[in-house]
Amino acid sequence: MGPGPVDNSRSPFAALGTLPFGSTALTDGVLSRRQQVNRERSLWHGLRMLHTAGNFDNLRYAASGGGAYRGPFFMDSDVYKWLEAVGWELGQRPNAPLQEAAEQAVTIVAAAQDADGYLDSYYQVAEPGRRWSDLPQGHELYCLGHLAQAALALSRACGNDRLLDVTTRAFAHVQTVFGEGKRIGVDGHPEVETALVELFRHTRNADYLRLATFFLNHRGAGLLGGGRLRDPGYFQDRVPIRDAEVIEGHAVRGTYLLSGVVDAYLETGEAALLRSSRRQWQDMVDHKQYLTGGIGSRRYSEGFGNAYELPSDAGYAETCAAIGSFYWNWRMLLATGEGIYADHMELTLYNGILSGLGLDGTHFFYENPLSSTGAHVRQEWYRVACCPPNLMRLMASIGHYLATKTPDGVQLHLYDSYRVNAPVAGGRIVLEIQSNYPWEDQVLVRVVETPERPWELSVRLPRWCRTPRVSVDGQALESTPRNGYAVVSRTWTPGDLVALTLPMRPSLVAAHPYVESARHAAAITRGPIVYCIEGCDQEPGVDPKTVSIDATGGLRSEWHPALLGGTVQITARGSAQDLTGWTQLYRPLDDVAPTRRPVQLTAIPYFLWGNREPGGMSVWVPIGQGSNDGR
Amino acid sequence: MGPGPVDNSRSPFAALGTLPFGSTALTDGVLSRRQQVNRERSLWHGLRMLHTAGNFDNLRYAASGGGAYRGPFFMDSDVYKWLEAVGWELGQRPNAPLQEAAEQAVTIVAAAQDADGYLDSYYQVAEPGRRWSDLPQGHELYCLGHLAQAALALSRACGNDRLLDVTTRAFAHVQTVFGEGKRIGVDGHPEVETALVELFRHTRNADYLRLATFFLNHRGAGLLGGGRLRDPGYFQDRVPIRDAEVIEGHAVRGTYLLSGVVDAYLETGEAALLRSSRRQWQDMVDHKQYLTGGIGSRRYSEGFGNAYELPSDAGYAETCAAIGSFYWNWRMLLATGEGIYADHMELTLYNGILSGLGLDGTHFFYENPLSSTGAHVRQEWYRVACCPPNLMRLMASIGHYLATKTPDGVQLHLYDSYRVNAPVAGGRIVLEIQSNYPWEDQVLVRVVETPERPWELSVRLPRWCRTPRVSVDGQALESTPRNGYAVVSRTWTPGDLVALTLPMRPSLVAAHPYVESARHAAAITRGPIVYCIEGCDQEPGVDPKTVSIDATGGLRSEWHPALLGGTVQITARGSAQDLTGWTQLYRPLDDVAPTRRPVQLTAIPYFLWGNREPGGMSVWVPIGQGSNDGR
Repeated sequence: MGPGPVDNSRSPFAALGTLPFGSTALTDGVLSRRQQVNRERSLWHGLRMLHTAGNFDNLRYAASGGGAYRGPFFMDSDVYKWLEAVGWELGQRPNAPLQEAAEQAVTIVAAAQDADGYLDSYYQVAEPGRRWSDLPQGHELYCLGHLAQAALALSRACGNDRLLDVTTRAFAHVQTVFGEGKRIGVDGHPEVETALVELFRHTRNADYLRLATFFLNHRGAGLLGGGRLRDPGYFQDRVPIRDAEVIEGHAVRGTYLLSGVVDAYLETGEAALLRSSRRQWQDMVDHKQYLTGGIGSRRYSEGFGNAYELPSDAGYAETCAAIGSFYWNWRMLLATGEGIYADHMELTLYNGILSGLGLDGTHFFYENPLSSTGAHVRQEWYRVACCPPNLMRLMASIGHYLATKTPDGVQLHLYDSYRVNAPVAGGRIVLEIQSNYPWEDQVLVRVVETPERPWELSVRLPRWCRTPRVSVDGQALESTPRNGYAVVSRTWTPGDLVALTLPMRPSLVAAHPYVESARHAAAITRGPIVYCIEGCDQEPGVDPKTVSIDATGGLRSEWHPALLGGTVQITARGSAQDLTGWTQLYRPLDDVAPTRRPVQLTAIPYFLWGNREPGGMSVWVPIGQGSNDGR
Repeated sequence: MGPGPVDNSRSPFAALGTLPFGSTALTDGVLSRRQQVNRERSLWHGLRMLHTAGNFDNLRYAASGGGAYRGPFFMDSDVYKWLEAVGWELGQRPNAPLQEAAEQAVTIVAAAQDADGYLDSYYQVAEPGRRWSDLPQGHELYCLGHLAQAALALSRACGNDRLLDVTTRAFAHVQTVFGEGKRIGVDGHPEVETALVELFRHTRNADYLRLATFFLNHRGAGLLGGGRLRDPGYFQDRVPIRDAEVIEGHAVRGTYLLSGVVDAYLETGEAALLRSSRRQWQDMVDHKQYLTGGIGSRRYSEGFGNAYELPSDAGYAETCAAIGSFYWNWRMLLATGEGIYADHMELTLYNGILSGLGLDGTHFFYENPLSSTGAHVRQEWYRVACCPPNLMRLMASIGHYLATKTPDGVQLHLYDSYRVNAPVAGGRIVLEIQSNYPWEDQVLVRVVETPERPWELSVRLPRWCRTPRVSVDGQALESTPRNGYAVVSRTWTPGDLVALTLPMRPSLVAAHPYVESARHAAAITRGPIVYCIEGCDQEPGVDPKTVSIDATGGLRSEWHPALLGGTVQITARGSAQDLTGWTQLYRPLDDVAPTRRPVQLTAIPYFLWGNREPGGMSVWVPIGQGSNDGR
């Protein structure tokens, strides 16, 4: 479902096939614990917030014809994202109270739908008679896309089709309005395109795929944008989708749109779609992506900046944009089988996405800047509350992204402790993966059940690791990696063990010199994890925004079981600056040097920051060699 | 006139009095040559652009009732700013062709005015019947403010009241629309407030002052802003002007508004106005001003950012905002007599303003970022062409800002070669100032004519200079400076000579560590001038965005008479990075170090960059010690 989980089992142009829902189960580890918190806390917290923020009231007013709409116009989508999350969760384990809550929510949604199938509480309550009058900003199709995703989750994971019926009626209405020979229009916020492809996959009704490509094909014709304050690039409406050379505009819109573009490719095989997606992806990772995988550096447009425009403190990096990138990378992985896309899924998940989710499951970051003076703190909810329920649906469905299959075998993309149960020709493949990833360097894959014919097990070799080792039953694997994966091709026996070792050294990374927030600076990384210097870990009085690191001083890492749910902390030598004298913006450099003193720097994973007392934080740390050079 | 020159000769609350127009005359030097280029090239270039861009056509259509309006809605203001520039210029020396051009322009403007006094070609031509319907963005009062400024320039400098008659009729109409008991409204783009105060000063008609304070008093009541995309802070409409604690929003609007606030204080003496202005000024210089004096770091809002949000490459720093800051500082200087405001006028003029004006007088920067990869090049004109004619009126009137008087004497604020002829009680004071400022450290002030009674000569001691020396007829002055000025109090004789020496060492400046574009970096300054590393001055293949400077390597300055009209060039030791290997955004730090090589860095004044072949540029240069440390 898209963006979100995909069922491409019948997509003719997929290089990799998704596993049916329920084929994977997290058993232990970072992702498993996040999913548990999501289940036990976030989903209930979200339900409460949807009640207090007015989302359910808006839908009730739509049903009853009375009441005053509250919140921004896309409030319905938060309900749908929450329902999608609940759907994925319920499909994994029974949960009667949650099921009851979901049923009530579906009832509220269903009651809100107009007789003709139209459903959007904002227009129904606040601007009746103005349906489809503001395609750039109205978000009507966007909301319906999320409705479809929620419906598909409930249907696939729980076999509950009540919301799917609502969806079917809603899109039957949409099809009376939009299409060739009818109204030519596209929604300002992409989402419906990928959702329609997924509806097609679920129903095999080709009208949905036709409508998806209709919406894709009419982008770039200037139907959106214009006006005094918004340029077409903001809406990815400057050029037709097949012609785009660079990625631009609102980052969530962009990645959702490109998810839809790749979804359409997966069904149609139209090479121009994939080529365009590749070009834009390359532009993003080469010029416009934070070290954390975060994207969309411009606050005002929530959008991509120019090449290398990646400020730290003013950086935006919306959680939803990182999630959108994850969804897009997933589709690129499915389309191509190339591990680089899984590398970026991993990078983005463990850094730019998880950073948005507080350890308690009830506090969130909407923005994920790479530094802060301490003013940036997690919130329980946001007026524009897209990110929290987006995190919920991703966490509930994260198992979906771990592995895929092909006629030749199974591919493992992300590491954690989990079980795979993949139906394949001639039986099923059951694997048990054990790892304390991303903290420890070993991933053990045990074959539990296997068909008797030979098949290939592919395990991703992340590009961050320069010296990966793979052994099969203790014997080093010598074969050349393929597409970024070690491939073990053999006839398997239950009990066979593949051991993947990914040595994790803490190390320093530099950015292109044009990235001005990182000039003459380094960031600490270890494995896939980007680190940061957070105030509360430092010596008293040390402000993370003032520290320098001694790049030749070495980095020491240590496992701390009780810290932030268990994590590897890294220490380094550096210096800190005393800000006491800094009342002015600018001072003679000669006055600055004496204010530095040597300190030990303590770094934690970026995605874990902001979970203790508020304070400063910095990912990029200028390079200096102690107090003498440290001016 | 405001913003712009002021005649506060009868303002009861002025600490310093402006000199009557024509009391100063530039004789030689940087400012004089800029004024000459303005006269000989910019004004004619501007006239041509106003013809080709449609500004005059719009006014002709308003007169004739036909034709299609071209350009943004405030096109009239460019005509007025050009006329203001011509007015100041004609007042200094006769120029028959220019006078003829101005008369024709005035004729076109006068013909455009409606019978009831209304004048705004956008609404007259493009949206008839929609007068005053869009106060946030319509710019009608803004345009009339500039009309007033042009009219006052032509009246004061040339004794030509034709445009003043148009202005009088226009504001008579405005007064039928706005005011207590009539429509309560304020213009989204301040300008009219300061212009109205100046109209009051010229005419002594208290209605103008009342209307100015009306517009000031109703700011902060939420009459502007709101809507989906603009917050009230953008319009300085979040809090009443007397309550503002920080400076925020669109930087030109902000500084124009504050110019009006101080103008109102100068007439009314209301302390709350001055206090508010002081607070906002302090917030600006302590947190939100570039090293160049440029302001408004956010591109999307052309506005102030958060404290320390001062990116270099994405920095906006509109030329008009720097000019607005100059006007505001001038009024603060007049209100308080404190030299710090003249220091900031000097800083802003020689760096953030002059940077906008190409040496040829016909190419401009609208934005003045502190670094560039080479894509930022001067343009002949802009679709939003506020900056070029703003530079023209400032250059034509720059003599106005050099000196002031009080009952006790004369104050010199800016240095260059010029003549002051100040009428004072008991006769006149004539001074001849000679200096090759800002390149050389000596300023000679010769008394040419003096009344017989004693009076005080005050010469500003810029804060950038740590060891200023003043001598009077060869004798060192020992008196304590007052308000940032050396004050020589005596009975003068023609021929008396005051010599001011302001030793200028090239030196390195650091920014507050929270300014992320300047972390671990230094900028080169000399006297009031901020330097930059421009590509075309460097060794072959050196990209200014990749260089580091050896902070202990010393700086050497040298006068180059043929370079960029004559300037002091500074060289330093540093290193440069080879970008060949940098195809990725991020790399292991270990891979980066070997790509650095030691180079000599050559710096020129920032305000002179962009006058040769396009290339990279950087003001803030990371500190490194050659190729070993230079990672």
